[in-house]
Amino acid sequence: MKAIILFGHGARDVRWREPFDRLTGLWREQHSSTPVELAFLEMMQPTLDEAFASLASRGATQITVIPVFFGQGGHLRNDFPVLLAACREKYPQIALSATPAVGEDLAVLQSIVDFGARAL
Amino acid sequence: MKAIILFGHGARDVRWREPFDRLTGLWREQHSSTPVELAFLEMMQPTLDEAFASLASRGATQITVIPVFFGQGGHLRNDFPVLLAACREKYPQIALSATPAVGEDLAVLQSIVDFGARAL
Repeated sequence: MKAIILFGHGARDVRWREPFDRLTGLWREQHSSTPVELAFLEMMQPTLDEAFASLASRGATQITVIPVFFGQGGHLRNDFPVLLAACREKYPQIALSATPAVGEDLAVLQSIVDFGARAL
Repeated sequence: MKAIILFGHGARDVRWREPFDRLTGLWREQHSSTPVELAFLEMMQPTLDEAFASLASRGATQITVIPVFFGQGGHLRNDFPVLLAACREKYPQIALSATPAVGEDLAVLQSIVDFGARAL
């Protein structure tokens, strides 16, 4: 069974996660056969490891991690591969892949341009 | 003349800003009559004040600031209003407004869901 993890930075203010909760809600409405979990790099739960454990216990065999970041800086180039490698080692039965950051996607960028245009 | 500022967090790794540079490129292609500048909260230039100065010198009379953030945490709830207030005081001739974070926009969130679906 395929599953996805939406991986965000995390923040001290709990309200910061609201768009992430909306994202998982949209995913569940539209892709109900593919389980989704959130995971955060720091300051919020669950961790990437906890999200893996949750999906593994529900029978996931392929997990795609989607970094919900704009840019690919130190967090994604340095911290993220270490976390992924730890998950690969701990869950060898799960086929793990990761996409580039969502901010690398032209359609995501276009949606931001369109948001700006509507705000004028 | 209307203008916009795309306001991001900033990062140590210069490659982090690539999606922001692509965003301004898309905006300039599609909305060439509305000048755009990037601005960053920390670790990258220009600052919000510098972006205001640049647009003011080009004759902007209305500036809309678009926070290119997913969540609205401490940066947008605490730091950002202080920066905006300073710009309002320094540039009283410019009508200034700010939108919610782009992550509050349903179409932006949908574009992330669609990106995830294509990655499966």
